[in-house]
Amino acid sequence: MNVTMALDLGGTKVEAALVRADGTVVEGTRSRAATGAAAAADRAAGERAIEQVVRHCMAAPEWAQVAGAGIGSAGPVDLAAGTIGPINLPAMQGFGITGFTAAVSGLEAVSLRLDGTCIALAESWLGAARGVSNALVMVVSTGVGGGVVSDGRIVSGGGGNAGHIGQLVVDRVESSAHDATVEGIASGPNTVRWAQGRGWNGATGEDLARDYASGEPVAVAAVRRSARAVGLGLVNAATLLDLEVAVIGGGFSFVADDYPDLVAAAVREHAVNAYAADLKVVRAELGGDAPLIGAAALVHRADLL
Amino acid sequence: MNVTMALDLGGTKVEAALVRADGTVVEGTRSRAATGAAAAADRAAGERAIEQVVRHCMAAPEWAQVAGAGIGSAGPVDLAAGTIGPINLPAMQGFGITGFTAAVSGLEAVSLRLDGTCIALAESWLGAARGVSNALVMVVSTGVGGGVVSDGRIVSGGGGNAGHIGQLVVDRVESSAHDATVEGIASGPNTVRWAQGRGWNGATGEDLARDYASGEPVAVAAVRRSARAVGLGLVNAATLLDLEVAVIGGGFSFVADDYPDLVAAAVREHAVNAYAADLKVVRAELGGDAPLIGAAALVHRADLL
Repeated sequence: MNVTMALDLGGTKVEAALVRADGTVVEGTRSRAATGAAAAADRAAGERAIEQVVRHCMAAPEWAQVAGAGIGSAGPVDLAAGTIGPINLPAMQGFGITGFTAAVSGLEAVSLRLDGTCIALAESWLGAARGVSNALVMVVSTGVGGGVVSDGRIVSGGGGNAGHIGQLVVDRVESSAHDATVEGIASGPNTVRWAQGRGWNGATGEDLARDYASGEPVAVAAVRRSARAVGLGLVNAATLLDLEVAVIGGGFSFVADDYPDLVAAAVREHAVNAYAADLKVVRAELGGDAPLIGAAALVHRADLL
Repeated sequence: MNVTMALDLGGTKVEAALVRADGTVVEGTRSRAATGAAAAADRAAGERAIEQVVRHCMAAPEWAQVAGAGIGSAGPVDLAAGTIGPINLPAMQGFGITGFTAAVSGLEAVSLRLDGTCIALAESWLGAARGVSNALVMVVSTGVGGGVVSDGRIVSGGGGNAGHIGQLVVDRVESSAHDATVEGIASGPNTVRWAQGRGWNGATGEDLARDYASGEPVAVAAVRRSARAVGLGLVNAATLLDLEVAVIGGGFSFVADDYPDLVAAAVREHAVNAYAADLKVVRAELGGDAPLIGAAALVHRADLL
């Protein structure tokens, strides 16, 4: 079992590759297929996309060495049932992805986890949470999500949805339930929208990064507001779980060179307990490879489960 | 190893007993000694109190069957160092309670955890969280604290302080950092104070319970405010950890017959994710025995650690 098929299903694409026991991707096995609007409307389109990337893996010479598959999926998931219910893919609600993948690939051992769980697994295995027994790994991007490591193990939770830090409620001043969450405040699109509502005339996270760097006041306030919401979410996570390290990745986290520092400052400001104020906040190390590496870790690093 | 010495150290008292492998207390072994002001000012007074209750256990005929001790302590704790730093006992900061207990008792195997962790262990072993793999057990009393069970194991966290749900930040409208926490809003004394500030003329949690039952408007608002803060804390815990059950104990939780229902309603109102809204909220089953039973579980139920 020195090669694993790793599969990552998201709202816009599904990706697969063969991954060795050292975390490296077998050359030529990585491929992706669109999910998006087609899979959102028609489950058969989603199934075809998954089948396409699985068959690409099966065509590799190394396929003979593959004994299992790991799958990371957009949530929510239901691990006991082996099904997924990604919010952005209505037609895939209740889809039995483990059974489908097993049937297409002929593999019997197929393991499923939330995509955030897989990213946390990847950073624990080969990235910024290596050797850390209590960590939260999160992504700040179009959405905000993550995964939790407690006492040296990945936390799945009742249905497999542990790690949804984006839906923590951090500010009751905001007007609606979602607006009061980490994601509702801190995500890239929501931060851009907030700045636009205050007269900033940029359009993208890249624009915001440029204007933050040049000290434009609304851009600075918007970035700090995002980091503060992430910090408040992390205060709660660190207080509840006595975390040592928070790992932050995702495209929008690059809106500011000092984004992790801004987050750490918010943690220090709002933490009541010293052990929570001491949380280290660092950048993720694995970037876009994390979802696949983490899916492979479901097989290669079962000791972390 | 069918009998364990269990010890529970708090800000007002220390208590010990011998506990059998079925969770029952050996008759005549339970005793307590005051900590409080004396131990807060003088470590030697705290040590004498601990030694007194340990020696009471050692005088029992069943002592010959004791092979280990479990200790629950007010936090924060430092498990790696085997020390405690209870906020209400300044003179006991950094006290090496595991070493001290081992020296007094002659026992080599002495295990330490946060008191909230022990209460969660107790309810997992013999109470309302029996058989539940993902639960948060909490106490709403003079303070608010608790412990976390994830994927069938008690979570300790980096230093042993996981479970401090009372210090979750749930309402930035409030004026200071502590006032914005679950404990700062929901504890018995803070709820009484809030009601008094709005013209209510009672003095205790019992008064508040009576006036809540009779529908006095300020008392009703105060109890609902407490339950809402607990619910907001639980929304964050349930979202982050995909919890199945929250167990609520502690004296102030009896301020209203429907306190768990009020909490559950707040969870449903504020949860963004369906799996978090589905959190079951139930009353604790073990009451005042939970800290000692949980301390004994550190030895008897090491499979839960």
